[in-house]
Amino acid sequence: MTDALTDVLRLPPGPVELSAIETDAAPGFDGGKSDGEAALFAMGEELSDLQERLWAERTTGSPRRILLVLQGMDTSGKGGTMRHAVGLIDPQGVRITSFKAPTEEERAQDFLWRIRKAVPEPGYVGVFDRSHYEDVLIARVRDLAPPEEIERRYGAINDFEAELVAGGVALVKCMLHISAHEQKERLQERLDNPEKHWKFNPGDLDERARWHAYQEAYEIALERTNSEAAPWHVIPSDKKWYRNLAVGQLLLDTLRGMDLRWPEADFDVEEQKRRLADGPPVR
Amino acid sequence: MTDALTDVLRLPPGPVELSAIETDAAPGFDGGKSDGEAALFAMGEELSDLQERLWAERTTGSPRRILLVLQGMDTSGKGGTMRHAVGLIDPQGVRITSFKAPTEEERAQDFLWRIRKAVPEPGYVGVFDRSHYEDVLIARVRDLAPPEEIERRYGAINDFEAELVAGGVALVKCMLHISAHEQKERLQERLDNPEKHWKFNPGDLDERARWHAYQEAYEIALERTNSEAAPWHVIPSDKKWYRNLAVGQLLLDTLRGMDLRWPEADFDVEEQKRRLADGPPVR
Repeated sequence: MTDALTDVLRLPPGPVELSAIETDAAPGFDGGKSDGEAALFAMGEELSDLQERLWAERTTGSPRRILLVLQGMDTSGKGGTMRHAVGLIDPQGVRITSFKAPTEEERAQDFLWRIRKAVPEPGYVGVFDRSHYEDVLIARVRDLAPPEEIERRYGAINDFEAELVAGGVALVKCMLHISAHEQKERLQERLDNPEKHWKFNPGDLDERARWHAYQEAYEIALERTNSEAAPWHVIPSDKKWYRNLAVGQLLLDTLRGMDLRWPEADFDVEEQKRRLADGPPVR
Repeated sequence: MTDALTDVLRLPPGPVELSAIETDAAPGFDGGKSDGEAALFAMGEELSDLQERLWAERTTGSPRRILLVLQGMDTSGKGGTMRHAVGLIDPQGVRITSFKAPTEEERAQDFLWRIRKAVPEPGYVGVFDRSHYEDVLIARVRDLAPPEEIERRYGAINDFEAELVAGGVALVKCMLHISAHEQKERLQERLDNPEKHWKFNPGDLDERARWHAYQEAYEIALERTNSEAAPWHVIPSDKKWYRNLAVGQLLLDTLRGMDLRWPEADFDVEEQKRRLADGPPVR
């Protein structure tokens, strides 16, 4: 199922119509929730093994790394995806950056300034919880930048991402796609369950009122930045288990595609074996 | 078993004799490897729940956080502990810092300069993979600082850690305790298994030749910095499963001891429910 799943999630080139992409489907996977959870769990060992190879490779000076970009409307499950899919990977090799509203210092710089600082070092699986895409999403919907600046940013993003890819970064861009109805259910749950009150922000309802403007901003951004080097994946995310499975599978397929080998020793193994065996007694 | 395990690992005040502490025991735990692995796995849900409460609490302005300090000889399993015990926690809430030999810039500053910059923000479980203790361990064994400076550092560390604790940091200091024989086996495995060559560094054998000097440096450091506010735990670590279980249990007991509650809403819940129900249709 695995290749099928990844292929079907890859956004084809051209105009994007989000309302034509189902949010509650499980494309490329034959099975229900418990099968999906089991399939994700079963990935753990291979994910872990391949990630360790990537981690090892950095010791040879290789520039390769992964950057998972998570975008989606409020409640679409960026946090849950990190917990359940990224959580399968050794935390030593993971670097998560959550982008909030830019600070005054950040606003005084080009929009990519703070992003560049957060690009993962070689060997890491970096995760962007929101990203430079906010600068063409909320920035567009909320008029936080002039139209000509927003327009400029699509190209700047493509140039930036092409530069990352050329520098050894495997980009995995995911839009977690939920329906307006599903968002309502999830916000309701955050209001009904006192253990989830801390996740709710009254401002979320102000953003929700602009749902269609956001969907349109996503459609434009997805189309304009769906490059060959760094394509988008639209993940049906009403089913949390499918969302987690899909992102786990994308990470796994990305690692598989890197043909990762264990580094060769840069020392004389036999000599070191002799040193260990014959070396001075520990003192 | 759990309280027993934590209590027994806590280093009592006074002089420390590492050779009197067994490295291959499993104190406070009745069971073998598979029981231990199952017990660690079984902790996952509670660990995850409590860590999310800590994470939630930060939204209220609480300063509380955890800092796990991992020290130990080469091959003692700092990496494995992070993978298997810290790996049970949501990676969003984890910040790992690995301290290598200080850079020239870092050496020009007080030894705590780079450490302070890595103290986790409120809400996080921070992990130090090596730490400021290297500045009284390798620094002592390798004469990297004058004796009077090493001497000064024990007090500076106690002051620094007391300040952290006063600032809301729950410190969990662990020395992963292995035998010289076990280290030899593990280095041998790194040499015998080509998939582990990348983990081996010929310099490890130079350090191994100073085993007893390191043990002595540890004994002094442990005694001098085993404060009430930030006590040490010596973890028998020849058994990897026990080491992982013990550190997992220490994290769990620390979180349990924090009496973490879900934050209360800082908004009118009923008003927001009305807004969600009656609000403008999404547009």
